[in-house]
Amino acid sequence: MSFEIDHRLKSDSTLLVKCNHIQIRLIHDSRYPWLILVPEYKDVYDVDDLDWNVQLQVLQISAWVCKALKVAFMPDKLNVAALGNIVKQLHIHHVARFEYDDTWPGPIWGKGKSLPYSPPDFEKRKGLICTTLKELNQGDLNAYYYD
Amino acid sequence: MSFEIDHRLKSDSTLLVKCNHIQIRLIHDSRYPWLILVPEYKDVYDVDDLDWNVQLQVLQISAWVCKALKVAFMPDKLNVAALGNIVKQLHIHHVARFEYDDTWPGPIWGKGKSLPYSPPDFEKRKGLICTTLKELNQGDLNAYYYD
Repeated sequence: MSFEIDHRLKSDSTLLVKCNHIQIRLIHDSRYPWLILVPEYKDVYDVDDLDWNVQLQVLQISAWVCKALKVAFMPDKLNVAALGNIVKQLHIHHVARFEYDDTWPGPIWGKGKSLPYSPPDFEKRKGLICTTLKELNQGDLNAYYYD
Repeated sequence: MSFEIDHRLKSDSTLLVKCNHIQIRLIHDSRYPWLILVPEYKDVYDVDDLDWNVQLQVLQISAWVCKALKVAFMPDKLNVAALGNIVKQLHIHHVARFEYDDTWPGPIWGKGKSLPYSPPDFEKRKGLICTTLKELNQGDLNAYYYD
């Protein structure tokens, strides 16, 4: 597998967890608890481009990430989306949204400027997400943590 | 099951197909080939709120709808998203996007005004989508068509 992550996804996010060949990454924007899933498969742009067994893994990991965001942040709504109009390589957004956040109730993409984390705030958010994922893990997901 | 579709989803779209308890509806906005999936389950806001077997059905139908949009419209990109910041009832957008469309490369939600179909254009688009879905159906999806 000669997968290489898109340079924009790489610079905009940090790898937290890998499950089989699916990365869970935290986006460098403190305005939202915002994760992306990146399946490490070359030339894949939509979920339906993946083999069915990989689609099932994506679904399982997506449900796990959604539950973790709900438990950790108690958002008013989750936004889950595969868009890719700018960066075509498949990445699936998972964003915890709040009625008081910067762009509510609109979508977050392309609105305003991203707000970098301070290093301690980034470590805190990363820690909370990883701890929550670990607490919720059902064992068969074969997760490797980078925290 | 005492499911009732949200009145905004109902008035903004037309039911094309039902698979088990999942509706495929065409949005009344001619700017984009735009379908939504609406699982007929009460008090469900996110995909991960559904029972696992229903999540699997949603995934299977989503892949089918994605393939149909690609075959019928040859878009530059698909956008698949469960947002629900305004209408909380779970509905999963499937939109065929083009580099020349009104809001490219931004997201479509909350941008510009929807452009109603003329009745013949609506019938044409509905017919093309249903024909393509039928051609791609693998049999086990148990689809009922409203065309």
